[in-house]
Amino acid sequence: MSTPLRPVPPPSADARIQAATRQLSLTKPAGSLGRLEALGEWVAACQDRCPPAPLSRPRVVVFAGDHGVSAHGVSAYPAEVTAQMVANFVAGGAAVNALAQASGASVRVVDISVQVDTDPSVSSHKIRQSSGSIDREDALTQAEVIAAIDAGRAIADEEVDGGADLLIAGDMGIGNTTPATALIAALTDTEPVAAVGRGTGVDDAGWIRKTAAIRDAMRRARPVVKDPIALLRVAGGADIAAMAGFLAQAAHRRTPVVLDGLVVTAAALVAEESARGAREWWVAGHRSTEPAHSIALRHLRIEPLLELDMRLGEGSGAVVALNLVHAAIATLTGMSTFADAGVSTETTATSAH
Amino acid sequence: MSTPLRPVPPPSADARIQAATRQLSLTKPAGSLGRLEALGEWVAACQDRCPPAPLSRPRVVVFAGDHGVSAHGVSAYPAEVTAQMVANFVAGGAAVNALAQASGASVRVVDISVQVDTDPSVSSHKIRQSSGSIDREDALTQAEVIAAIDAGRAIADEEVDGGADLLIAGDMGIGNTTPATALIAALTDTEPVAAVGRGTGVDDAGWIRKTAAIRDAMRRARPVVKDPIALLRVAGGADIAAMAGFLAQAAHRRTPVVLDGLVVTAAALVAEESARGAREWWVAGHRSTEPAHSIALRHLRIEPLLELDMRLGEGSGAVVALNLVHAAIATLTGMSTFADAGVSTETTATSAH
Repeated sequence: MSTPLRPVPPPSADARIQAATRQLSLTKPAGSLGRLEALGEWVAACQDRCPPAPLSRPRVVVFAGDHGVSAHGVSAYPAEVTAQMVANFVAGGAAVNALAQASGASVRVVDISVQVDTDPSVSSHKIRQSSGSIDREDALTQAEVIAAIDAGRAIADEEVDGGADLLIAGDMGIGNTTPATALIAALTDTEPVAAVGRGTGVDDAGWIRKTAAIRDAMRRARPVVKDPIALLRVAGGADIAAMAGFLAQAAHRRTPVVLDGLVVTAAALVAEESARGAREWWVAGHRSTEPAHSIALRHLRIEPLLELDMRLGEGSGAVVALNLVHAAIATLTGMSTFADAGVSTETTATSAH
Repeated sequence: MSTPLRPVPPPSADARIQAATRQLSLTKPAGSLGRLEALGEWVAACQDRCPPAPLSRPRVVVFAGDHGVSAHGVSAYPAEVTAQMVANFVAGGAAVNALAQASGASVRVVDISVQVDTDPSVSSHKIRQSSGSIDREDALTQAEVIAAIDAGRAIADEEVDGGADLLIAGDMGIGNTTPATALIAALTDTEPVAAVGRGTGVDDAGWIRKTAAIRDAMRRARPVVKDPIALLRVAGGADIAAMAGFLAQAAHRRTPVVLDGLVVTAAALVAEESARGAREWWVAGHRSTEPAHSIALRHLRIEPLLELDMRLGEGSGAVVALNLVHAAIATLTGMSTFADAGVSTETTATSAH
């Protein structure tokens, strides 16, 4: 069987160098915009264009799915919240809606594996109802993994074909930090107790149940940890598999991505195992409070842009970080050069006036 | 003589509590937006209104001034750059112009103490040409300190009267990190070598000259370190005194402020010495790479929002952080409540649907 996740060619080295050179000509001391400079150069590389074009259609796709493990006391919220929140995204009342509006992005929600039926407008890519309880059974069948990855790829294609010039994946699903943490701990050989966080805010007893579930899922996953498709089958979920396909396909479509928190980054970590090089098309929007998120970012060698102690998911951290991408582009496109502005440079002490 | 910097009443505790209570009703786990939540509550407190109103006129004022010490090899750039950059701000080509446009703010530049004549449109508050070389002479006379603080207060009044609902001070002045660092080191009793940074990018020999100049300025300032007005006279500058007046008056006018980097924060530290409580009206936009900036923030007990290794000044870091203020307001104003959206809460496991 051929894998749907294949290696990805890198962004344009030429455009990155042009942008780095342009930075030196702009009216500011070299390097003084700090990480915004590298961020702008990355956008230029992704667009193969210097200066990069302002983003006209940054797009958030929230992947919704339930998880059988949520029936076993690993979350502070009941599973029915997943479907309720899908309706909230459609109505525009969730955090990511408000934050996206503030940063010039639009939001789409897709039901990949919600337990109950949802509106047909969001369920055309639905794979199944919920995913299996990974502490005791496979999340998916092999065919469902492939179908979910393909759904994510198709969604990325739909968005890029529709004009999206930057993509953000968000997650919504009660219990989804359990498979996300299991995947990250398995791929990075981390002890569960070092990786497990509070998710939406589970109490001590729930944290113990969650850690036990992750330990059991990791034991089940050990034989397949080198095989991303099988790993998603045993210890993942349809929503996470779809996000992995989405993130890899965004890279294949040469479209930059801002990663969000724990669940999206778990999908990214799995995707990068087979879609090698996809990470060059991604930046990390923020560092969440979930320990496994930092473990995954370290493994991907991506330093997050923001550290605001967020832990919501939905793409919320990424969409806040999107403002920094806009800012980085704005300096490369909007600033005058030393020559144009008649400003003396560091090396020539003579006024150009 | 009465000081122009007087204690400041705090933002509204009631509105802050209302906003914190509102956070708990919105469709997200409690606390899951991390620092954005406290940021939104602070805006509500400053506005005395919950939910807070979206910002309609956030405003950046760049305070330009030269410093005699720049003639003594403490900067990588010649002093003439200050006036050239004033023209660049007016033309809209500087980093802060591009960044402000990306975050919905507008920019004004004022010549407080540029060495040469500038356009009358920016020099109506001018105090003098440059400030004294603080390693060997006072920066200002006592009357000039008062006039500069009053100029900053008048500028804040002009902006608030003109509709500004959030204020950012920026700095522009070759050599200005030297007095800023001297003021911070003096007020926090820090050894110069622990406080002095590279500014715009001075080389090793320049850093040694800069550190020596700061050491000399601190020796001159020691007798007056408890008197903010005298301290600004001996080791400050007209631009920094004006910023101190501006930041204090913004607080008196109950207008929130996002602080920028080293130079603005030095002015804030001096202002807070007399305008006690002004700090409650300020948040720190970012942590610059200048060591003295972190020292000043720690002394003010303000944790910066961003850490992007920026070191430009101009208000550039603050204006990037302004996006987080917009985001924080957007969640408090735009999100649905659990009740409105029919989403189950943590404690009631029964669907409202």
